[in-house]
Amino acid sequence: MKLRVGVVGATGYAGEEILRLLVRHSEVEIASLTAIIDKPSIFSDVFPAFKGIVDIMCTAPDVDDIIKKSDVVFLALPHTVSMQYAPGFLKAGKRVIDLSADYRLDPALYKTWYNHEHADLGNLKTAVYGLPELNKEKIRSARLIANPGCYPTATILAALPMVKNDLVDGEIIVDAKSGVTGAGRKAAIALCFGEVDENLKAYKINEHQHMPEMASILSVAGGKNVSVVFTPHLIPMRRGILSTVYIHLKTALPEQEIIGLYNAAYKQAAFVRVHKPGAYPEIKDVLNTNFCDIGIKVSGKLLIVVSCIDNLLKGAAGQAVQNMNIMYGFDETKGLR
Amino acid sequence: MKLRVGVVGATGYAGEEILRLLVRHSEVEIASLTAIIDKPSIFSDVFPAFKGIVDIMCTAPDVDDIIKKSDVVFLALPHTVSMQYAPGFLKAGKRVIDLSADYRLDPALYKTWYNHEHADLGNLKTAVYGLPELNKEKIRSARLIANPGCYPTATILAALPMVKNDLVDGEIIVDAKSGVTGAGRKAAIALCFGEVDENLKAYKINEHQHMPEMASILSVAGGKNVSVVFTPHLIPMRRGILSTVYIHLKTALPEQEIIGLYNAAYKQAAFVRVHKPGAYPEIKDVLNTNFCDIGIKVSGKLLIVVSCIDNLLKGAAGQAVQNMNIMYGFDETKGLR
Amino acid sequence: MKLRVGVVGATGYAGEEILRLLVRHSEVEIASLTAIIDKPSIFSDVFPAFKGIVDIMCTAPDVDDIIKKSDVVFLALPHTVSMQYAPGFLKAGKRVIDLSADYRLDPALYKTWYNHEHADLGNLKTAVYGLPELNKEKIRSARLIANPGCYPTATILAALPMVKNDLVDGEIIVDAKSGVTGAGRKAAIALCFGEVDENLKAYKINEHQHMPEMASILSVAGGKNVSVVFTPHLIPMRRGILSTVYIHLKTALPEQEIIGLYNAAYKQAAFVRVHKPGAYPEIKDVLNTNFCDIGIKVSGKLLIVVSCIDNLLKGAAGQAVQNMNIMYGFDETKGLR
Amino acid sequence: MKLRVGVVGATGYAGEEILRLLVRHSEVEIASLTAIIDKPSIFSDVFPAFKGIVDIMCTAPDVDDIIKKSDVVFLALPHTVSMQYAPGFLKAGKRVIDLSADYRLDPALYKTWYNHEHADLGNLKTAVYGLPELNKEKIRSARLIANPGCYPTATILAALPMVKNDLVDGEIIVDAKSGVTGAGRKAAIALCFGEVDENLKAYKINEHQHMPEMASILSVAGGKNVSVVFTPHLIPMRRGILSTVYIHLKTALPEQEIIGLYNAAYKQAAFVRVHKPGAYPEIKDVLNTNFCDIGIKVSGKLLIVVSCIDNLLKGAAGQAVQNMNIMYGFDETKGLR
Repeated sequence: MKLRVGVVGATGYAGEEILRLLVRHSEVEIASLTAIIDKPSIFSDVFPAFKGIVDIMCTAPDVDDIIKKSDVVFLALPHTVSMQYAPGFLKAGKRVIDLSADYRLDPALYKTWYNHEHADLGNLKTAVYGLPELNKEKIRSARLIANPGCYPTATILAALPMVKNDLVDGEIIVDAKSGVTGAGRKAAIALCFGEVDENLKAYKINEHQHMPEMASILSVAGGKNVSVVFTPHLIPMRRGILSTVYIHLKTALPEQEIIGLYNAAYKQAAFVRVHKPGAYPEIKDVLNTNFCDIGIKVSGKLLIVVSCIDNLLKGAAGQAVQNMNIMYGFDETKGLR
Repeated sequence: MKLRVGVVGATGYAGEEILRLLVRHSEVEIASLTAIIDKPSIFSDVFPAFKGIVDIMCTAPDVDDIIKKSDVVFLALPHTVSMQYAPGFLKAGKRVIDLSADYRLDPALYKTWYNHEHADLGNLKTAVYGLPELNKEKIRSARLIANPGCYPTATILAALPMVKNDLVDGEIIVDAKSGVTGAGRKAAIALCFGEVDENLKAYKINEHQHMPEMASILSVAGGKNVSVVFTPHLIPMRRGILSTVYIHLKTALPEQEIIGLYNAAYKQAAFVRVHKPGAYPEIKDVLNTNFCDIGIKVSGKLLIVVSCIDNLLKGAAGQAVQNMNIMYGFDETKGLR
Repeated sequence: MKLRVGVVGATGYAGEEILRLLVRHSEVEIASLTAIIDKPSIFSDVFPAFKGIVDIMCTAPDVDDIIKKSDVVFLALPHTVSMQYAPGFLKAGKRVIDLSADYRLDPALYKTWYNHEHADLGNLKTAVYGLPELNKEKIRSARLIANPGCYPTATILAALPMVKNDLVDGEIIVDAKSGVTGAGRKAAIALCFGEVDENLKAYKINEHQHMPEMASILSVAGGKNVSVVFTPHLIPMRRGILSTVYIHLKTALPEQEIIGLYNAAYKQAAFVRVHKPGAYPEIKDVLNTNFCDIGIKVSGKLLIVVSCIDNLLKGAAGQAVQNMNIMYGFDETKGLR
Repeated sequence: MKLRVGVVGATGYAGEEILRLLVRHSEVEIASLTAIIDKPSIFSDVFPAFKGIVDIMCTAPDVDDIIKKSDVVFLALPHTVSMQYAPGFLKAGKRVIDLSADYRLDPALYKTWYNHEHADLGNLKTAVYGLPELNKEKIRSARLIANPGCYPTATILAALPMVKNDLVDGEIIVDAKSGVTGAGRKAAIALCFGEVDENLKAYKINEHQHMPEMASILSVAGGKNVSVVFTPHLIPMRRGILSTVYIHLKTALPEQEIIGLYNAAYKQAAFVRVHKPGAYPEIKDVLNTNFCDIGIKVSGKLLIVVSCIDNLLKGAAGQAVQNMNIMYGFDETKGLR
């Protein structure tokens, strides 16, 4: 019998990708398809790519109905909306994978960065940050997964081995570049083709809500405070994040040795690939995949790490399915390669 | 003393381009800058490209104030809004160049295609269709210019010599491709980068409001009914229209002779360039210029014409300034080369 | 035991896509990987996306070695090169799927359009044009498949039901738009980003080598001569073809009836989807899929058909794998959905 | 009488832009147009945008002929080629503006980074680095201008006020992003649309030849050694550079005070615009202009500077014309606004 999956928020970019992955996943069935919409629509009328593949109705979410039909629920909802839905599913014994930021930060940081009191402190305490390369064991038994943000996924994986080995001196400088789908599927002049194409900009410098997520997860992982400076940039491409991470090392180490530390850190990781010296990943290497590719350059005591992901897959839907695979004992790569 | 120009609707793409042209135009001064906006903004805060160049305030339009300050008024407003503003300026003796569709069609067509009763029938009668290659003499003395649409400009110039020479057999098939700024500067999911990039679509097939404009202008020019079939396509580029026009000829003619007819038709035209046999224009040849470039291919009795313009210049702001130049006796190319 | 597949020409765009499909196909193994290259390279060094997935060596083709290792051979080679390799494989009893144009046209047309004498007339006679929607039965037993061109696939599928029903009056006008990968992976100024981006052009008007392919296949299918006028355009996107096809009908028919004829024609087709009235396909609906999506608009006696494919899948590698599936009795959609 | 200008290397992207600027410049005439080409071509056949505007012949460079016709010569040639041509023009008393890197570095650095012995040491000593914001007085009387590289222009202007005020602590980290025309107009797979679009990569990390240019110019300007770490990235856009520059300050200073230092440094600069607190420049603000726009963010003792230019204008042709204006006493902004 297949695992029955409910998707809430199916009409955004992440929701669309979750569907794309689930229809190819042999262990699951799509049991419920909902979104915050005014009137029900056939899913393939919203996304004609799914014509003949997912022709079922997408309705507004009815919590009781979703509970009845689903074993696990993906929440691909905006911040603050997820925490309205998650408690009901959890109370009914369902497992929840939340792609929003609602369960990623402690309540004080959440309030500061999302400008909203946290409304579900009880479940927040039990939520597991769903980065398999960091928390695989906890993910297995988690009831509630806080699926990581896209920028944090690319950046934490770039810095984690250095943080764990206590090699970081001072703040980590993160210069990240993202495709436009990272901002979601919504009507906004700033996201229009006429504004984005042949353009490039930095935005929210040191004020982006993903910065405290990077800092707090790395701080816990390293057992000491890690400081992050973060400049995100919007790039004229649909998908992909490239994060260029500058780390001052406490001790100068040869490039080959650093690469060795990364290889060691990720030798069990199904979706992290570390490049050879002199080779750096490009977005096209990871596009439409769940991989995070990493390249290393050492210059004296400065380490430069280039990290690439597909923001909608390893940065959202792919990681969510990877988490589901781990939670239910499926092959971790099921439906993802 | 310089000509005092008022611009109403300065914060759209066409308005922005009008400003870009006017600041380089030695015979005019920008006397009034307004737009349908909630609160006044410095123009260069809306478009930082103009920092240090146009730092004056852009306010909501105050008709009396504009009348006091301006000799001629450009209306870069949405359909149905222009005809609310034009009558006041005309009554006060100002000349008006309207970039909307409000004065391009007869009242019956206007109602059919824009779904609105025409509200200014008096001025509609006196409006001159501002295509200099067709109506230069009338433009000189016009009080109200109906500045042509972008698709019609590219297409009418591609077909005009054949229509005037009565060589067209049956309907004209227009397969046109436009960059995204043709749809205006507005928040809409369909215009977002994530939807437009790496995509291509036909839309409003035979239902686009520019189709009756092409047909009626060509019919008047040819002195007989001209039928047009029109398929517009949205292309992942910011600017530019390429119109591929298929015309069945009444009589087979050699390519060189057809090209000769085009050269003859446009020998006085400052902004139409006809290519040699075997050469076809590309968008990049006309980008950021006021040119319409035309290439010709003959296959038996079928003529294929490729016509390129920059939709924001020859298709909007550039043509508007060209019309102003003609109206005020300036060099027709002033500020445009 | 799995089907042993050899790929010759693995380092072009079509070759890369064949690999992407084959690694997900449960019935095959990649037995031989070769390309016209100067020195052997690990495939994942050429395409790092395949790191950890296809790390085997790609060498220059050694025909004997390929014969020893493979049951079926994909040729993703340039025109005129394929017909140097195919005879050897066929003689050794291997089945061949050729993605070049070498086995698609009769010798006279081939010489005219590819400027080369055909060098393998014997096998040319037995080659089957690998469009499953037209030739599925012949494909089952074919020894040599001439895999269709990208423009012809999109266009023939758009016109086939009308041709078969003998409804076409006069020539078919094909206005097609293609992404850049259609031109192959090669160093050429005309394909560079600086030339293609924010640009759009028509090229080889009525002189493109895919025109006789469309005309001859449609003529055979309809049992009478079909004439095609063809204007290809280069679009600033990586992948995808949208073909807008204008057909004058012998008899005016209601749109719903025409759509009915298309639905009937393709009701057995696994990869053709016909849209409802008023809905037209977009490139993004078929991107990264093997589908051909079709939309219909009728205007009096003129039929406008919009047809979309991914040029590297239904227009090349996907169709090649579909042909392999049919030849070997696998599910036709295996590895393709 | 107008200044007679010769352009050598007119068929590259920088050459094309020089022409675009010169045709609008009222004080000059294009006296000679040459390029490293096999056979002479009409310039507007190479760049049809210039049809009717620059229809003169572009030939291979004949030094004597250029000397006879020109007062000043622009060299838009590849590295190592410029220094073959410059000596002849200088000896004949002509002034030279060289857009290559041949006269920007001392001989030792040149050999290290361009892998070539310098072949014109005599003129190298007298060359003036043509960054008007740094060297305006020297430019006035210069015989030979080393026009700055694109990355160095954006980066040096971002760091110069801090270097001159001796506020920099440790190395300057430069994370720069460039459009594709920065790599020149040449056939290379890595520059093809199919490789660049929907992609993003870092390249030549700490190995790019523009790094020593930044470091040596800043070191001279500051009177002490300045160390630079440089990661360039290739962005899917035609034009534009955005340089994100990270500078550790010796002393923490309020953002407003830092911005004050930038404003003071550039108050005489015709083409540098410093943004208000919280506002950062975007590529589209400077596209098709000669401006360098700068935004400032301070975070403790870390300063983040965002700097934008059009790589073909302020980063190449525009700066070259600005230098010409200064050399000949024209208004510095002539032909550039």
